[in-house]
Amino acid sequence: MVTSLHRRGPHLDPRELAGRFARVRGFTEALARPLSPEDCGLQSMPDASPTKWHLAHTTWFFEALVLGPGGEPPFDPAFGYLFNSYYEAIGPRHARPRRGMLSRPSFAEVLAYRADVDRRVISLLDRLADGRDDEIRSLVDLGLHHEQQHQELILTDIKHALGENPLHPAYRAAPRRPEPLPQPAPGRAELAWIDHPGGLCSIGHAGPGFAFDNEEPRHRVHLTPFRLADRLVTSGEVMEFIADRGYERPELWLSDGWAAARADGWGAPLYWEIGGGAPRIFSLDGLRPIDPCEPACHLSYYEADAIARWAGARLPTEAEWEVVAASAPLRGNFVESGLLHPRPAPPREGAPRQLFGDVWEWTASAYLPYPGYRAWEGAVGEYNGKFMSGQMVLRGGSCATPETHARATYRNFFPPGARWQFSGLRLARDA
Amino acid sequence: MVTSLHRRGPHLDPRELAGRFARVRGFTEALARPLSPEDCGLQSMPDASPTKWHLAHTTWFFEALVLGPGGEPPFDPAFGYLFNSYYEAIGPRHARPRRGMLSRPSFAEVLAYRADVDRRVISLLDRLADGRDDEIRSLVDLGLHHEQQHQELILTDIKHALGENPLHPAYRAAPRRPEPLPQPAPGRAELAWIDHPGGLCSIGHAGPGFAFDNEEPRHRVHLTPFRLADRLVTSGEVMEFIADRGYERPELWLSDGWAAARADGWGAPLYWEIGGGAPRIFSLDGLRPIDPCEPACHLSYYEADAIARWAGARLPTEAEWEVVAASAPLRGNFVESGLLHPRPAPPREGAPRQLFGDVWEWTASAYLPYPGYRAWEGAVGEYNGKFMSGQMVLRGGSCATPETHARATYRNFFPPGARWQFSGLRLARDA
Amino acid sequence: MVTSLHRRGPHLDPRELAGRFARVRGFTEALARPLSPEDCGLQSMPDASPTKWHLAHTTWFFEALVLGPGGEPPFDPAFGYLFNSYYEAIGPRHARPRRGMLSRPSFAEVLAYRADVDRRVISLLDRLADGRDDEIRSLVDLGLHHEQQHQELILTDIKHALGENPLHPAYRAAPRRPEPLPQPAPGRAELAWIDHPGGLCSIGHAGPGFAFDNEEPRHRVHLTPFRLADRLVTSGEVMEFIADRGYERPELWLSDGWAAARADGWGAPLYWEIGGGAPRIFSLDGLRPIDPCEPACHLSYYEADAIARWAGARLPTEAEWEVVAASAPLRGNFVESGLLHPRPAPPREGAPRQLFGDVWEWTASAYLPYPGYRAWEGAVGEYNGKFMSGQMVLRGGSCATPETHARATYRNFFPPGARWQFSGLRLARDA
Amino acid sequence: MVTSLHRRGPHLDPRELAGRFARVRGFTEALARPLSPEDCGLQSMPDASPTKWHLAHTTWFFEALVLGPGGEPPFDPAFGYLFNSYYEAIGPRHARPRRGMLSRPSFAEVLAYRADVDRRVISLLDRLADGRDDEIRSLVDLGLHHEQQHQELILTDIKHALGENPLHPAYRAAPRRPEPLPQPAPGRAELAWIDHPGGLCSIGHAGPGFAFDNEEPRHRVHLTPFRLADRLVTSGEVMEFIADRGYERPELWLSDGWAAARADGWGAPLYWEIGGGAPRIFSLDGLRPIDPCEPACHLSYYEADAIARWAGARLPTEAEWEVVAASAPLRGNFVESGLLHPRPAPPREGAPRQLFGDVWEWTASAYLPYPGYRAWEGAVGEYNGKFMSGQMVLRGGSCATPETHARATYRNFFPPGARWQFSGLRLARDA
Repeated sequence: MVTSLHRRGPHLDPRELAGRFARVRGFTEALARPLSPEDCGLQSMPDASPTKWHLAHTTWFFEALVLGPGGEPPFDPAFGYLFNSYYEAIGPRHARPRRGMLSRPSFAEVLAYRADVDRRVISLLDRLADGRDDEIRSLVDLGLHHEQQHQELILTDIKHALGENPLHPAYRAAPRRPEPLPQPAPGRAELAWIDHPGGLCSIGHAGPGFAFDNEEPRHRVHLTPFRLADRLVTSGEVMEFIADRGYERPELWLSDGWAAARADGWGAPLYWEIGGGAPRIFSLDGLRPIDPCEPACHLSYYEADAIARWAGARLPTEAEWEVVAASAPLRGNFVESGLLHPRPAPPREGAPRQLFGDVWEWTASAYLPYPGYRAWEGAVGEYNGKFMSGQMVLRGGSCATPETHARATYRNFFPPGARWQFSGLRLARDA
Repeated sequence: MVTSLHRRGPHLDPRELAGRFARVRGFTEALARPLSPEDCGLQSMPDASPTKWHLAHTTWFFEALVLGPGGEPPFDPAFGYLFNSYYEAIGPRHARPRRGMLSRPSFAEVLAYRADVDRRVISLLDRLADGRDDEIRSLVDLGLHHEQQHQELILTDIKHALGENPLHPAYRAAPRRPEPLPQPAPGRAELAWIDHPGGLCSIGHAGPGFAFDNEEPRHRVHLTPFRLADRLVTSGEVMEFIADRGYERPELWLSDGWAAARADGWGAPLYWEIGGGAPRIFSLDGLRPIDPCEPACHLSYYEADAIARWAGARLPTEAEWEVVAASAPLRGNFVESGLLHPRPAPPREGAPRQLFGDVWEWTASAYLPYPGYRAWEGAVGEYNGKFMSGQMVLRGGSCATPETHARATYRNFFPPGARWQFSGLRLARDA
Repeated sequence: MVTSLHRRGPHLDPRELAGRFARVRGFTEALARPLSPEDCGLQSMPDASPTKWHLAHTTWFFEALVLGPGGEPPFDPAFGYLFNSYYEAIGPRHARPRRGMLSRPSFAEVLAYRADVDRRVISLLDRLADGRDDEIRSLVDLGLHHEQQHQELILTDIKHALGENPLHPAYRAAPRRPEPLPQPAPGRAELAWIDHPGGLCSIGHAGPGFAFDNEEPRHRVHLTPFRLADRLVTSGEVMEFIADRGYERPELWLSDGWAAARADGWGAPLYWEIGGGAPRIFSLDGLRPIDPCEPACHLSYYEADAIARWAGARLPTEAEWEVVAASAPLRGNFVESGLLHPRPAPPREGAPRQLFGDVWEWTASAYLPYPGYRAWEGAVGEYNGKFMSGQMVLRGGSCATPETHARATYRNFFPPGARWQFSGLRLARDA
Repeated sequence: MVTSLHRRGPHLDPRELAGRFARVRGFTEALARPLSPEDCGLQSMPDASPTKWHLAHTTWFFEALVLGPGGEPPFDPAFGYLFNSYYEAIGPRHARPRRGMLSRPSFAEVLAYRADVDRRVISLLDRLADGRDDEIRSLVDLGLHHEQQHQELILTDIKHALGENPLHPAYRAAPRRPEPLPQPAPGRAELAWIDHPGGLCSIGHAGPGFAFDNEEPRHRVHLTPFRLADRLVTSGEVMEFIADRGYERPELWLSDGWAAARADGWGAPLYWEIGGGAPRIFSLDGLRPIDPCEPACHLSYYEADAIARWAGARLPTEAEWEVVAASAPLRGNFVESGLLHPRPAPPREGAPRQLFGDVWEWTASAYLPYPGYRAWEGAVGEYNGKFMSGQMVLRGGSCATPETHARATYRNFFPPGARWQFSGLRLARDA
């Protein structure tokens, strides 16, 4: 995911904002705490970034967009070049695939950079306490939502880097004891269908809370009647797909997906070890047995699409997902649970399960602008829509997403071949 | 474009069908007539195929799907391997990027293959004259629509191959005299906006005529009020875009488009020669001056999107395009005009101009299934939707499209970086 | 092989030269005669060129170097760009990997080009009959040796192109009847060792006949006593190497060779078909059974080196080969035999067998300048040594080499991974 | 460079060996001391390895070859997989280009690994004190020579990694003050030629000291009379080459070199910054001005060859170099000087200067086996000759080579495009 930016609505309370600033910034550092400086420098592929880079880039964001316009000199003039991600308007930048080559500045220097910028932002917020400057508070708010996006990427990127190590090392030194495999509970694995009558509906964000620009404007869509599964597709179902030779049958796959699967030798989801013995999955706590009841995860869009086709179903569109999720309570297995792994669905309860948290759900919708979409003015808005090609929308958040970052209108997006996110699927059908 | 297939409605008159079969098949060979066997073997990139391969593949389609199920032995058992394109159910096939390596069978042998299959299909249609077998007639009908798709590809692929030759050779030995550059006519270059109120509309195919499956089912969409330009973007406007440094300003481009433009060194549309002297474009009649009034052509989606943004507008969605085109007469500069090049718009006349023919118009819509889309049974339908990822929809047909192949519901599709088709754009705006 | 150029010795008789010119030029066209224009356009890899290109390039050589300096206008000014190979001093040139894209000029036009240049060169030679201009005669002589190099490449390149066709087509329409498999003759397969005492020896060319510059100057080398096999390694021996898992044992291979074999999936020499049934090899007459007594062919240096190591031997250096070959009669299975395939060794006769013809023999010597090597002046000599890195020397000529082109001092060279030449090996050992 | 191994001669004194073991092993760690764990994990290209990997691999060598055969269990069973370099006989290994992905084991763990193996080797040597086991002492001796090779690679690899950092960080925190630019001293820049009469000479190692197998056997070669420059080519001379457009003139270059220079955009030696202002070079102490009198460094073979040709000279063969160096005293600017950078030649003194140390000197000789070369038995010898293709020989040692590792017969080797070693050139000419 690349981040897009958005101006919030009016009236951010400065005190509340300063408190949130401290909490969000602190949580980022807490995520890095189990890692050594050596770990924090790893970049395992061009799409991923080192933890250290995430720590610095999110800090640079505040420095460049919040402090810079006020004329404050930067902590280090070279950092703009090193830690800009893709803001062409702000200047040139270090090549993305070489972010792992930056042993200097050191991890300790980056922490010092964070502390310095934190101090200066808090000081700025204090000075604004009279409510004089909405723009600055909006930018700080935006920077915090931006930082939350990178919190999730810190986890998915370090998982990818550690996952390549033949030692299968755990992310945290004293891993949380894995939850006991759940006993087969009545109704847990059963799948029910939620019917929706379709018709003229509205999706997208409107109202006072924060949203990224790609969630706006709220607009009407016409839906054909459809059904949505009341839970996520499970690892057990993917095992059946594998046993049914799903990875070897071209008729189940999109043409591009089949090519990707052949080229990269896919025979199971990323991080699965199914060579011999009980199937295991690499998690942030190291290798663990695959629970057939847990949601399937680390699937590309291509796999999700093929699995849905194999199951006689399809992926939902983002509009179908949102109209169902709009009325559901926003709770689930987010990063705050500390599990860092999706967990089996709760027993059926007559309502859709697992809509939020656990795994991002691939939708059948390409990431495109909503009707009436408008880009912002200035550097913040320069690239709001620049990623609107070649990517698919995911919805709902994952076990690595901060709970306060999730909402029903949130549009995440990744290229269809991406597998290193906590990404899975939910089935849909025409009614 | 890869072809997708569809069964037509009922009641194809066998006599009419046989006549059409002869005309369509003959036209394909007429397209190859200006070319030498050497020309017909060229494959200039993996996405393009040699003329000879197109001639053979369209023939194989009839042999494999129409004659084969009746138990007729093939003309040559090896041809199935050589001339299958992507039908996995029918068997393995020769690697696409190596189609240009097949000097054997010779061009003459492929013509003999065509004659043999033509004779056998006609004979089969004669025997079916009692109306006994709808399925076979449907497949023949389908084969003819499939062949028309390849007629356009024959022209775009040989243009690409000849366009690489430093001699800039013309496709046809005695080129048609280029039309004189049009005099500035009142209203010709003016652009008017067609307003549409939006609301609940219907798009997609329904009814008796032929359509590919991706045009179905007809369904409702809700549109926000919008405006559509009454003509295509012109080469003159693209010259202004270039003069305004449009190819050098990242803020105008999608991120993927900017990367493609950098990687491949784009500074003008494909086939433009603007180094020195008057700008020229390589056409099927060789190099010719660029008429500023003619529609811009050979643009990728990325360029079309950037040009629209530069113009303060956007691309229309496919639904917006279709609801306007649905009521327009189906006429324009198609392959039958013999020009093989887009021509300037006629003077304004209070109605949208150039909706059909001239150039395919990139839309802002990803190529995805319509709600309720269903794939066919059997080999014909095995892959109907397999290309529904990573591509964008184009509408309207071009100067290389057979007129009888165009319609308002037709969905063409190509990856966003493709430039070798006759592809351009029309501007749209929110109302 | 890329051609290098050389100054002739003194006193070329103009009449003799004109006769030879006609014969060599005619033989090139005879080699193309079994091929269609479609065949002649094929380029199957960047290292190979289309037959048509060879026909034109050898002609361009005479036009640019013999006729051009006299002020004669070229047949077509564009041909210099299209048919220059690598002479930077003479001007820019068409990209090598795209030579197969040139359907124009046509095959017929290239033949007309040849006829025109032939006429003009003969006319020039007539005018020179008084012996006035040694330089021109030297250049014509050089052009003929250059053309003979391309005669061999015509055969190896078209073999590669046809070898890729799933139909396994033969190069010539009415193939010569393959020779009957030889009866096991006494002594045929036996291998004897020729002992050489080593010491101070001389290699390299000196004296009146033609030689390329890389064969000069003749110079002294000191050799350790060694033994040379009296025949080539046979296909039967390579079958044993395969059966002994030679392609799977890294300890037999150079590191680069092992990497190449893994990357390209080598499990047998190029053109071998050993999947099921009796092993066959693709030849210029199509697929034929592999005679275990025939010399192994189409081996890379890496394979030759591994096979020698497996056999408890090594490859000879070029000096070892030359000091033995210097006293052997220059006869063997050259292109004039019409076989276009290596043939089994004759029975032992107390002298080294197969030193000339059949297959080029990889040596253990890198292609480097001899001590005292001097490059020529001018365009002809600009690049004499420019290929002296990254290649290995081969000796002796092959079944595709013109007999008058072979000699004991001749140094052929190819990169160690090249397999599409008629290349094999002879074993050597320390005494 | 990949290391090749060799058994030393008899009679290594155990006490002396143990002392040397401690010194060499300690020096390796001293080289890593200025670096942070983050620095030690960097791998900037597949040909380079992280410092940490070098520390572990050299340790694994002792563990696998010295301790392992005695039945001692390994420190960690996984380390064999991680830290084997290319010994196929000993087992599979981690992919070379991914060595930079191993944040675990940590730098601290690798130091603990070193300490453990050191303790066990010393203990083993103590137990051998009665002289019982020559083989083990030979292997320890070999391991120390192997480790010295990696000492040089630690410096060249970290220089490459730091050199990519836009901050141009120095390797050592408190950099040694750069020596003052030398005053033009009489005779310093002058170049004299050393004449050699050629004839029958001997090269290669023989006698009691240690040598790698590729230096043996000593053998005779016949040399043509030649001249050797009495000093290295300087940076000032390379500046003249650049000013004379040497990087833009194809006639100066080998064909492969020209292609490499174009593909990678070479316009100066690696690490040179000549954009604006005084030319600077990145050194292990960061950027410093280029002294025109210092030896040119970080040149590929291709550049060395082109510079020699431009200078009207050539590179010496390795035999020419060795016969001159054999009688010179083994002294020079080695790693022990602490400069880590080549220094200008001393004033002329009637003898060849700079033969040892400063920069490795590219020779015109391909890296091939000497006549009579024999590979060892067992794992140590499995691959002794496996790198004898595609590489060129360098002679003399550099400012990063341990002095005790250099000798006149030493053959270093790298592919002709390699630039990240301390590599330069000395001119030669035919007499």
